Amino acid sequence: MAKFDEVVAANKQFASSFAKGGLPMPPARAVAILTCMDARLHPEQFCGLDFGDAHVIRNAGGRASDDAVRSLVISQRLLGTDEIIVIHHTDCGMLTFSNEQLVAKITKTSDPMPATGTSSPSQIWSKASSTMSTSCAAHPSSPTTSPSGEPSTTSNPEGSRR
Amino acid sequence: MAKFDEVVAANKQFASSFAKGGLPMPPARAVAILTCMDARLHPEQFCGLDFGDAHVIRNAGGRASDDAVRSLVISQRLLGTDEIIVIHHTDCGMLTFSNEQLVAKITKTSDPMPATGTSSPSQIWSKASSTMSTSCAAHPSSPTTSPSGEPSTTSNPEGSRR
Repeated sequence: MAKFDEVVAANKQFASSFAKGGLPMPPARAVAILTCMDARLHPEQFCGLDFGDAHVIRNAGGRASDDAVRSLVISQRLLGTDEIIVIHHTDCGMLTFSNEQLVAKITKTSDPMPATGTSSPSQIWSKASSTMSTSCAAHPSSPTTSPSGEPSTTSNPEGSRR
Repeated sequence: MAKFDEVVAANKQFASSFAKGGLPMPPARAVAILTCMDARLHPEQFCGLDFGDAHVIRNAGGRASDDAVRSLVISQRLLGTDEIIVIHHTDCGMLTFSNEQLVAKITKTSDPMPATGTSSPSQIWSKASSTMSTSCAAHPSSPTTSPSGEPSTTSNPEGSRR
């Protein structure tokens, strides 16, 4: 069975007993979580979130990328969240390679570059790791950030177990 | 209690009984899910994912943005996933406003534009909604996509309940 079909089957089973389909769009706890795409992280579980509680934004490394900031702007300005919690974790894959290594790996295996496109692959690849970030606190689109003075991070379950 | 403190407290409770801290970094099911940040979506639950199963990338609208493609490149080229499942949902907030409306809303409430910065706020805002996307299948960085010929979407729990 293809993974797509497995997910659809799992979703059908989930939907058969799902009873929270009427929740409102704005997050009930008015908070947005920004964290990594890492498969070992299940943010709703390790943050104690119920359905409808919080926006969850995820990318490779949990970076405050332009796209994450875009999402946070929408989260705050249109959907009423007023706090951002950024959660990084131990053993993150983003710490295991350099931009140059990724570019080299892709260049060897990819099809030829397209002549035109919405984005240049080299633009994406050249900023694949930690250089691509923005300070949430400093960004003019973010009116509110974490209320604490310390960095808005919590240890992840893996971290707390190691 | 600040929301940050609530999340930290919930995380401590979660970590106290968490027993899967030794999972490997590459996703066990070699799949990446791209979906929306919507608070009502808990992808791990509605996709039937266990800890360590799949990368989960989320942004406002579940868009194949540059940053999502960056994450997918890393997912596939460095961490071995070979299938992408894009999941959109009913009642998405991204369908409730235009770029122009968001820009107007932010312009009224924001601090003055900074003279310099990593990204121009107007660049981010001007592409806040559905115009910012890339075809995963067409993108040269994505060697593999969904095995099915149909769109890689599943209905979300809300959708299936309405």
